[in-house]
Amino acid sequence: MATITSLQNLRVKDAVRLRQRRQRERQGRIVIDGARELGRAIDAGVALVEVFVCEQLCAGEEARAVLERLPDGDAEVLHVGPKVFEKLAFGDRTEGVLGVAETPNVRLDDLKLPDLKLPGRPLVAVLEGVEKPGNVGAVLRSGSGADISALIVADGRTDLYNPNAIRASLGTIFTIPVCTATTAETLDWLRRQRLAVFAARVDGSVPYTQAELRGPAAIALGSEATGLSAVWSADDITAIGLPMHGVADSLNVSATAAVLFYEALRQRSHDPPLVR
Amino acid sequence: MATITSLQNLRVKDAVRLRQRRQRERQGRIVIDGARELGRAIDAGVALVEVFVCEQLCAGEEARAVLERLPDGDAEVLHVGPKVFEKLAFGDRTEGVLGVAETPNVRLDDLKLPDLKLPGRPLVAVLEGVEKPGNVGAVLRSGSGADISALIVADGRTDLYNPNAIRASLGTIFTIPVCTATTAETLDWLRRQRLAVFAARVDGSVPYTQAELRGPAAIALGSEATGLSAVWSADDITAIGLPMHGVADSLNVSATAAVLFYEALRQRSHDPPLVR
Repeated sequence: MATITSLQNLRVKDAVRLRQRRQRERQGRIVIDGARELGRAIDAGVALVEVFVCEQLCAGEEARAVLERLPDGDAEVLHVGPKVFEKLAFGDRTEGVLGVAETPNVRLDDLKLPDLKLPGRPLVAVLEGVEKPGNVGAVLRSGSGADISALIVADGRTDLYNPNAIRASLGTIFTIPVCTATTAETLDWLRRQRLAVFAARVDGSVPYTQAELRGPAAIALGSEATGLSAVWSADDITAIGLPMHGVADSLNVSATAAVLFYEALRQRSHDPPLVR
Repeated sequence: MATITSLQNLRVKDAVRLRQRRQRERQGRIVIDGARELGRAIDAGVALVEVFVCEQLCAGEEARAVLERLPDGDAEVLHVGPKVFEKLAFGDRTEGVLGVAETPNVRLDDLKLPDLKLPGRPLVAVLEGVEKPGNVGAVLRSGSGADISALIVADGRTDLYNPNAIRASLGTIFTIPVCTATTAETLDWLRRQRLAVFAARVDGSVPYTQAELRGPAAIALGSEATGLSAVWSADDITAIGLPMHGVADSLNVSATAAVLFYEALRQRSHDPPLVR
């Protein structure tokens, strides 16, 4: 078993380049940091190309477990020294395993709602113009907890499979149907699916707790800087808002998403009376 | 009006050092990035020591407005060149104003609940062992929106007035009563205030929507890595949890906080029936 110790190794150099969006698009590959995230990608059937392993750093049980679960013959396992691994992991990860996978390619029309977990009453999340990959990941993590059916990144200013999005999602990005599309395509698709569309706005006229979120629905959230674009003000879209006390006029987009997703889940659950 | 252009200027050097926690503690001062945040500190009566201004970068209206609102004679205004400002602002801010203030010193016993906005039914948030200043800030931002009465950072592994906490809070940190204490002091204080204490736990047995959050209450949240410590399992504390679908076993602490604070607000508001 040869161990790669040179930073000049071509496989290493290609993988390091995957930290850049342009290179991810050019190579059609993504990089998956973290044992837990890699495990979730394997469970989800993501097409792994190669897994870099640094034995010296691979102390945790999770990392060991992942290595034992690699699909036979699919991904090539490359052993690397600590210096090479540090370079691959951008210095911030110490779990000793890192995966490179083919970019999952889900198109809007492949999102088949009847196949989803809540037949008849899907809840689709839309993130428009989002800039920070960490927010994409945080929204997915909360959405997974609240059982959303799918996430569409519309006119995104970050790529869906940015390593930081994968990381912040704790790997849930591989377990929820996700895709990217333009805003126009997204709205058209939501209408064709006959979903009730709710737009989260700072000035949303309907308090979110009064919105009927129990039926087949979509919740659209705007970018950190500018909110949702004008097309989300159409007559067939309900503008909802959170009450805002205090001096700030909005929550962080991931906090807003968590509150809205869990309100939908609350409404969809049989909600017994208050007890203590 | 002299403009400081030397990075060796002693005032500049002292202010740059405030990026380090140890220096904030030694100098008893904090650094406030951002025009909006600085404005909120001024509104809240925070004792500004000096304000660094870079005319060339000071393009925004918010920055201009802040300069006009500086309290007379209190804070010294120091004009600096762009290179000095960049150093002060750690390169990531371009609003052209940056404040240095005395560290607000609020002790647990100074948190007087009867003076707060919701007499008779305060909602106090406790963050135990939190590591990331961004989470402190995000929790404050959501807490401000949901009208919490106070935040206590218990056994914090970050300092409350870390510049990133101030920033992530959008300056709401200056508008909500906040303090740091040990966990033991915090629990003792909560009990003396006769608050119903709810501990957010991954395995919390009471679903959060069934917890009675309408009375005088405290919600305790644990650290990102290890959750709440064992003392929060006492018999007089109710362990609450969020339903978790999907593969992750928890939400980000700031997402959990937002969901819980807004559930308390929902319960506390007169909640009309669903409409669409």
